Amino acid sequence: MSNSRYSVTELAALLGAEPVLSDLLIKGIGTLESATETQLSFLHNSRYQLQLTDSVAGAILVREEHRHNVRSVALVVDDPYLAYAKATALFAVNRCSSSELISPSAIISPDAKVADSVIIGPNVVIGEEVTIASGVSIGANCVIGAACSIGEDTRLSANVTLYSDIRVGTDCLIHSGAVIGADGFGFANDAGEWVKIHQLGGVIIGDGVEIGAGTTIDRGALDDTVIGNGVILDNQIQIGHNTVIGDCTAIAACTAIAGSTRIGKNCTIAGACAIAGHLTLVEGTHITGMSMVSRSILQPGAYSSGTAAEPHQQWKRNAVRFRQLDEMSRRIKNLEKTVKQQNTEGQP
Amino acid sequence: MSNSRYSVTELAALLGAEPVLSDLLIKGIGTLESATETQLSFLHNSRYQLQLTDSVAGAILVREEHRHNVRSVALVVDDPYLAYAKATALFAVNRCSSSELISPSAIISPDAKVADSVIIGPNVVIGEEVTIASGVSIGANCVIGAACSIGEDTRLSANVTLYSDIRVGTDCLIHSGAVIGADGFGFANDAGEWVKIHQLGGVIIGDGVEIGAGTTIDRGALDDTVIGNGVILDNQIQIGHNTVIGDCTAIAACTAIAGSTRIGKNCTIAGACAIAGHLTLVEGTHITGMSMVSRSILQPGAYSSGTAAEPHQQWKRNAVRFRQLDEMSRRIKNLEKTVKQQNTEGQP
Amino acid sequence: MSNSRYSVTELAALLGAEPVLSDLLIKGIGTLESATETQLSFLHNSRYQLQLTDSVAGAILVREEHRHNVRSVALVVDDPYLAYAKATALFAVNRCSSSELISPSAIISPDAKVADSVIIGPNVVIGEEVTIASGVSIGANCVIGAACSIGEDTRLSANVTLYSDIRVGTDCLIHSGAVIGADGFGFANDAGEWVKIHQLGGVIIGDGVEIGAGTTIDRGALDDTVIGNGVILDNQIQIGHNTVIGDCTAIAACTAIAGSTRIGKNCTIAGACAIAGHLTLVEGTHITGMSMVSRSILQPGAYSSGTAAEPHQQWKRNAVRFRQLDEMSRRIKNLEKTVKQQNTEGQP
Repeated sequence: MSNSRYSVTELAALLGAEPVLSDLLIKGIGTLESATETQLSFLHNSRYQLQLTDSVAGAILVREEHRHNVRSVALVVDDPYLAYAKATALFAVNRCSSSELISPSAIISPDAKVADSVIIGPNVVIGEEVTIASGVSIGANCVIGAACSIGEDTRLSANVTLYSDIRVGTDCLIHSGAVIGADGFGFANDAGEWVKIHQLGGVIIGDGVEIGAGTTIDRGALDDTVIGNGVILDNQIQIGHNTVIGDCTAIAACTAIAGSTRIGKNCTIAGACAIAGHLTLVEGTHITGMSMVSRSILQPGAYSSGTAAEPHQQWKRNAVRFRQLDEMSRRIKNLEKTVKQQNTEGQP
Repeated sequence: MSNSRYSVTELAALLGAEPVLSDLLIKGIGTLESATETQLSFLHNSRYQLQLTDSVAGAILVREEHRHNVRSVALVVDDPYLAYAKATALFAVNRCSSSELISPSAIISPDAKVADSVIIGPNVVIGEEVTIASGVSIGANCVIGAACSIGEDTRLSANVTLYSDIRVGTDCLIHSGAVIGADGFGFANDAGEWVKIHQLGGVIIGDGVEIGAGTTIDRGALDDTVIGNGVILDNQIQIGHNTVIGDCTAIAACTAIAGSTRIGKNCTIAGACAIAGHLTLVEGTHITGMSMVSRSILQPGAYSSGTAAEPHQQWKRNAVRFRQLDEMSRRIKNLEKTVKQQNTEGQP
Repeated sequence: MSNSRYSVTELAALLGAEPVLSDLLIKGIGTLESATETQLSFLHNSRYQLQLTDSVAGAILVREEHRHNVRSVALVVDDPYLAYAKATALFAVNRCSSSELISPSAIISPDAKVADSVIIGPNVVIGEEVTIASGVSIGANCVIGAACSIGEDTRLSANVTLYSDIRVGTDCLIHSGAVIGADGFGFANDAGEWVKIHQLGGVIIGDGVEIGAGTTIDRGALDDTVIGNGVILDNQIQIGHNTVIGDCTAIAACTAIAGSTRIGKNCTIAGACAIAGHLTLVEGTHITGMSMVSRSILQPGAYSSGTAAEPHQQWKRNAVRFRQLDEMSRRIKNLEKTVKQQNTEGQP
């Protein structure tokens, strides 16, 4: 739990809400249902309006239209969800209270360049010619390969692996288990045997990127794999070699993107999708969950594939018919022909 | 290989089989096909009955009905598969033979509370205010964040990462590469840019939980993510923030569950499924492999989606027709109308 | 960047091209578009023929038919892609320049057998009775469980985890985050509670195998899980217990294979597939991306499933119809019957 305390008046100012006068001290954030009288809450979705009127939260972020449904203090903002996001930063716990910045157990190559005010956790291994800018924090047991550079204020959680020659921008957050720069899956076939194509490119990660736990981003074959500024990647995503992801694109967990695909800016790709290689998805493409994308998408908009779960016995009958779809289509065509003939024959 | 040895008579008693008299020493377990004359085997599925009569295993766990098909000694039980599970515990190898309980290379915060008889492997890093109960074993290179608590007899394999404020119950087993408590994927959009919602909740893991290799369980946004008692999770599962999994639910590998979904007790979810966020799946829900669950399931039972692989050329024709399904349906309706009219017209 | 330099004449000899006379020094490899005048390039796919004529690359690997489209020096080979693969090995950077072979921070069991000329990185932990052959290189923070054996010239990147009793062949490459030998997902159900089946088998990995980042290969229940020689596995693949993969089979990222499935030699399985347990896929099976394989495949050939993404609104209408497929099929049958009757009735 955070030790942060803000008066409601202060919060209104910090979160861009209409000014209010209240010296009530707010000590945390809760949902409408769970927030106590010294916590802040928010109404994001009108569906939860009933919970709003019942909530005992000390102050609640709402849009103008819900101002009068708040029992305590309404903090009126244009976008309560965005204001809530900003509020979470105020109450986030800072766990880096260690007095020593660089753990004595870290193993740092003598020719690495590490700026002042960098935090390096226990057992971290930093290779040759690595450059680490100020404000960077590297969690325990991370391994940073040779010739990597990490920009200002970027944080790596514990157990992150960076291969050599990876460039990470400023203000990024990389979660545990992520692996950046492993070899792309490139092989040539020589009479049945696979001959490795050594992956000579690197990975470039922009500024303000978040990379989830267990996500893997492969290095490029010849050119680099590129993740744009402000991209957010959830857990267990796979990004193939030479893929390029545009700025501020968001990708949810367990989506796999094959090599050399280019995804534009401001796309959203939901979880568990599979996107084939060598495709282009234009700016403003939105893919719903578990979709299979096997062709380029050249018009912005929402795209989907797949079929949703249904009771097993019913599904079984339908799934069998899927394999007869082409035949069904031809039978419909035949029927249309026959019926049209009958109609014509019946006419004088 | 285990050094355990049990006479057949002892095994019968330990596994709850009908008493038998045999001082043959059993030294391990094998399948019906591979078991030697000093190994135990079992018949789980009547499909393998032929293998039963051929098996040279020293003793075989069977149901009453197969007693007379065993060439050696039949160990008669109600549930041979369950008895086999119990037998594996007798022959499991205990690799923790190190004489020192706590590796001198482990880095343990001075204010962590570590009980007696805890095993802590090499290079383990344990943060501030962590509590570790007796009988716990932590594999090499694990990182345990601040304020975590780990219950009695829980084991972590090598290279497990626990972020801060994670509560793990008793008798759990967490496999390598698992990451518990990384940030949930929460962001608000501010005119195209993503603003991070700091994840202020934790993760609570019940007693007797098994978590597979590379599985990620995100911390909650405000409240906690909760894994019930006796839950078993296979490898590379993703569990989003604030998801709640009921007791004794089993989830197979590579299934992704988005945030805030509630899954009841005693569910089974097969591998490679994708379950959307904010859903409810009631107790006793069973999902088959690679299903897409995009709506709540309020009736217990088996559910499925997807279509199975078929020869590529045939699939291609059918998959094209899928995109014409709605049109096909309307054409059928039109045909029905026309044919009905013809029928009516034909009548006097 | 590599410091390797080869004259074009040397390259022709090394890559099996027609001899050419040119002492131009080649310093790297680039795509047709990006290669400079001191780089090698290649034409793999006739689609890029236009780029060939524009390319300023110092030398270009081409088939006979494109010889005259090269502005600089054509290196004529039968298979330019294979020659390119061989060329990447010449220009790959060798980062292992550390003067010490075994990091003083590595923790190696006194009864492990480590050959000469083995590289062991910082914080590596090696258990009892491990055998490591000559030429092996183990990256930082890897953990090698008891009684493992690693064959000659095999390389493990940083943060790889091997459980105990794993046999890895020669010339393998295992990427970061991979976990080999975690428990298979085996449990018996005892009146609603799961009883663990301890996994007593191991994992056997052949020679020349590549295993991608974050890939997990479970140990066998009784017998071993087996990966054949020359198998290539991409990132985040899951291989269940007792699965057997035949020689030279290639599997792309995020594919999940359940337990006890046998996959033949020389198969290719694309990314994001799910393959059920206890199946057989014969030699020469090829599965396209995101396919669901729920039955054995006994004829070689290409197999597919799934449907590709389409605009969301259109998909929604089609996906609803999928649930009516069986009914649609019956309506077609009824129509056919009725129309046939009408035809018959209309006849004299």
